Amino acid sequence: LNTAVLGWDVGGANVKAARLDEVDGVPRVAERPFALWREPEGLWGVLAEVAASLGGPPQRMGVTMTAELADCFASKRRGVAFVLDALRRAFPRSRLWVYGVDGRFRSEEAARRKPLRVAAANWMASATLVAEAWPNALFVDVGSTTSDVIPIVGGLVAAGGRSDSARLRRGELVYTGALRTPVCAVVRRLPWRGRRCRVAAELFAIAADVHLWLGSIGESDYTCETPDGRGRSREEAGARLARMVGADLESLDAEAVTAMAECVARAQGRQIAAAIRQVMRRLGARRPPLAVLAGRGRFLARAAADAAGLPSGEADALLGPGGAAAPAVAVARLLARGPRTWR
Amino acid sequence: LNTAVLGWDVGGANVKAARLDEVDGVPRVAERPFALWREPEGLWGVLAEVAASLGGPPQRMGVTMTAELADCFASKRRGVAFVLDALRRAFPRSRLWVYGVDGRFRSEEAARRKPLRVAAANWMASATLVAEAWPNALFVDVGSTTSDVIPIVGGLVAAGGRSDSARLRRGELVYTGALRTPVCAVVRRLPWRGRRCRVAAELFAIAADVHLWLGSIGESDYTCETPDGRGRSREEAGARLARMVGADLESLDAEAVTAMAECVARAQGRQIAAAIRQVMRRLGARRPPLAVLAGRGRFLARAAADAAGLPSGEADALLGPGGAAAPAVAVARLLARGPRTWR
Repeated sequence: LNTAVLGWDVGGANVKAARLDEVDGVPRVAERPFALWREPEGLWGVLAEVAASLGGPPQRMGVTMTAELADCFASKRRGVAFVLDALRRAFPRSRLWVYGVDGRFRSEEAARRKPLRVAAANWMASATLVAEAWPNALFVDVGSTTSDVIPIVGGLVAAGGRSDSARLRRGELVYTGALRTPVCAVVRRLPWRGRRCRVAAELFAIAADVHLWLGSIGESDYTCETPDGRGRSREEAGARLARMVGADLESLDAEAVTAMAECVARAQGRQIAAAIRQVMRRLGARRPPLAVLAGRGRFLARAAADAAGLPSGEADALLGPGGAAAPAVAVARLLARGPRTWR
Repeated sequence: LNTAVLGWDVGGANVKAARLDEVDGVPRVAERPFALWREPEGLWGVLAEVAASLGGPPQRMGVTMTAELADCFASKRRGVAFVLDALRRAFPRSRLWVYGVDGRFRSEEAARRKPLRVAAANWMASATLVAEAWPNALFVDVGSTTSDVIPIVGGLVAAGGRSDSARLRRGELVYTGALRTPVCAVVRRLPWRGRRCRVAAELFAIAADVHLWLGSIGESDYTCETPDGRGRSREEAGARLARMVGADLESLDAEAVTAMAECVARAQGRQIAAAIRQVMRRLGARRPPLAVLAGRGRFLARAAADAAGLPSGEADALLGPGGAAAPAVAVARLLARGPRTWR
């Protein structure tokens, strides 16, 4: 009896997969950073490689995606079609079930007919799974690029928005993360010898440089490309941060770089905390009593939950180690349970 | 008698040159967008081409640069040396005079000994020239990427900062411009159907998309690369702007895109106006009575000067048409006047 299931989270900068060999078993996870916008035609090959690293393509696959927003696609509609084409090409013999923002799986054909229903639905998969264990919680998943802040009330996902735009307005999606976020998108000014200095509006440094410098992540966690193509050492990260104020490591000492990095990390925490507060405000008396954290930026999620006065826990047993590939694990678990009311 | 002089402004994203065949003549200007950070080894070839387009390399060349901050260089020191090497390779028979932040020309050899003196000195060349015609003025040069706000008092350049960092702190350098500035570095939120929406921290759209959409620039002014590699039509620019709020042109109408673009343009104007006010505050009673505008983002400079309550004029006769290559013209004019106290 072949019960194996592969869950996919196909993003614009990362491809993640989770394999489940038994219902409610322990998932095996694989992740591959991939700059889709630069070489979209390479996607199907990456999908095939990732599946191979998890023992080859099983008969059933669950799919979520956010890649359709990548700017190699003229519209989201075209992006969804492209991702489905790539999956089809990589796995001609597998049956694809595509998860939608309405919390249902669709056949590949049905997904192609309603592409916007399956765009950016990965958060819904994770939150649906979390809701089973924590019927009243705020699910906070801080990834490499974005943060999801999803309320769960009475065992149901109580998100107010379904599209990226609607979620960005409501604070349920925040474009800040542990790795890829450009420093110039987080702060306008940085501390400099006790004063404040405007920053360069260039992609000189990213969040990964900040958190590597501060020791919140290690070199092996810095899985995205470096902005300048140089290495991932602490010194190289520091040089990138110094460039944000038009300086270099000849003119800026380590203490000054640390002050800058701390300023960015705090600002990211505030961005997420503000979103948490916005979501909680909307819920009024139904607001959940705790936060469930996931993602490689959990240290940011925890700081934000603390700042918002919310106790927090983790869901590793459910979502896999660190919850770093929570949507892929979630979509695998949900599909593995077998038939429901799928469209 | 060979009086021809070529002035260079070697930036990280643009190479500009101005040729002067007679002292105080009318300059001929050439510009070439060039992503130095991506292929630094191509610089010398670009320099040679630009010089050829202006009648070939003359015996004397004046040089300013900002390219040394590009992140293909580990430090500014190395960046300066690299640019000088490229000039030397492109023009083995020309004599180079390198302009410094102290307002003096140096021989190539002297510049190599003091690289930080000749780093990011292009604003000093323009302001020195402007000071001759307007002894009390605020020189505001808004380029593709950055804005310079330089006070001129009693015929002298009265800038408080000499390095990029010092200038960023004082408001004499603002990283906002008419073309290359990422939208996510300007605004945190954009209007969306009467409400405010968080923006994507991605390089989905840049200032050129904003100003093209609004008609402040035309397609031929959009000289930098587009973020998504697509075209420069109004519709393509609009699609890039829509992506900033996770939308596309299927879900956002033209009116909504206009509201977003106007919000970004206003925010850029405010950034420059705040810098103008900061510079003016420092000058106290010595504050100049008018602004002299230059650069391809003059429309932003004018809006900012208006907002700061400063009447403004232009310096086309002095700095060339539109002042779009002001530092190259300035360094050519200053060098053409012949020997001074050069080091």
